[in-house]
Amino acid sequence: MSEPRVPEKSTSRAVLEQLDEAECLRLIGAGGIGRIAYTGKYDLTVLPVNYKFHDGAILFRTSADSLTASELRTGLEGSEYRVAFEVDDFSPGSRDGWSVLVQGPAHHLDDEAERADALAAGVEAWPGGEHDHFIKISPMRITGRRIRRAGP
Amino acid sequence: MSEPRVPEKSTSRAVLEQLDEAECLRLIGAGGIGRIAYTGKYDLTVLPVNYKFHDGAILFRTSADSLTASELRTGLEGSEYRVAFEVDDFSPGSRDGWSVLVQGPAHHLDDEAERADALAAGVEAWPGGEHDHFIKISPMRITGRRIRRAGP
Repeated sequence: MSEPRVPEKSTSRAVLEQLDEAECLRLIGAGGIGRIAYTGKYDLTVLPVNYKFHDGAILFRTSADSLTASELRTGLEGSEYRVAFEVDDFSPGSRDGWSVLVQGPAHHLDDEAERADALAAGVEAWPGGEHDHFIKISPMRITGRRIRRAGP
Repeated sequence: MSEPRVPEKSTSRAVLEQLDEAECLRLIGAGGIGRIAYTGKYDLTVLPVNYKFHDGAILFRTSADSLTASELRTGLEGSEYRVAFEVDDFSPGSRDGWSVLVQGPAHHLDDEAERADALAAGVEAWPGGEHDHFIKISPMRITGRRIRRAGP
């Protein structure tokens, strides 16, 4: 800690490290809470969803009539919106953490075979009600970073 | 639990509740980790930052040469990008949680008086290096929701 000026330098012992794709995939592979970001009717929107990483893609479920489901429809066959999906984990005590960003098209599982596969994967939605609509994000770009304390 | 079909109905005892603005402000008032979303050079981007809620706005710091700082510049005086800022808290055990979404313009604190005020607020960045650039998001729209288990 060469320059103890606070708060200007109070975080100088933390290190930001870029993660490679393999490490990103390992980190998001466990599933859990992630956040989907998309440009919707009410501007740029970010919403947490419960996801699974299945068959190389992010999978989550929502209700067919939800904002998320309807706003991610382009209305054109074969045309899909690009969305972002973020997963992170920070430990407030140690101030260590990581985040992974997945970018790719949001694909609606309208096909019965696709739906059956997603159901079998066991992905669950958190909110109540009918959530029998599945959305899959196939990564086109995966980036991540880790923040950790440096030194002793 | 009237319909024990799993996984189709396994989350049917959870309730999604919309939060009013006052409750949203209360929840994000504590500061901590939030996620800024913006459309950048590499498509829609979501990145976690350490923020404070100060004087009615989201405040975080970054380095002046970071992607976040440069990509949030329109290059036009008085013109600012609209961004989204998300904060949430979920407890994996109970499956209860909440999320708040703030939408508004990203304002760079280039003015010395503004910077001094932000420094005094004590907002810290997590990564190392120089992080003497402050960005403020003044909420134009605040929405939130809570997910909780219903009934016994």
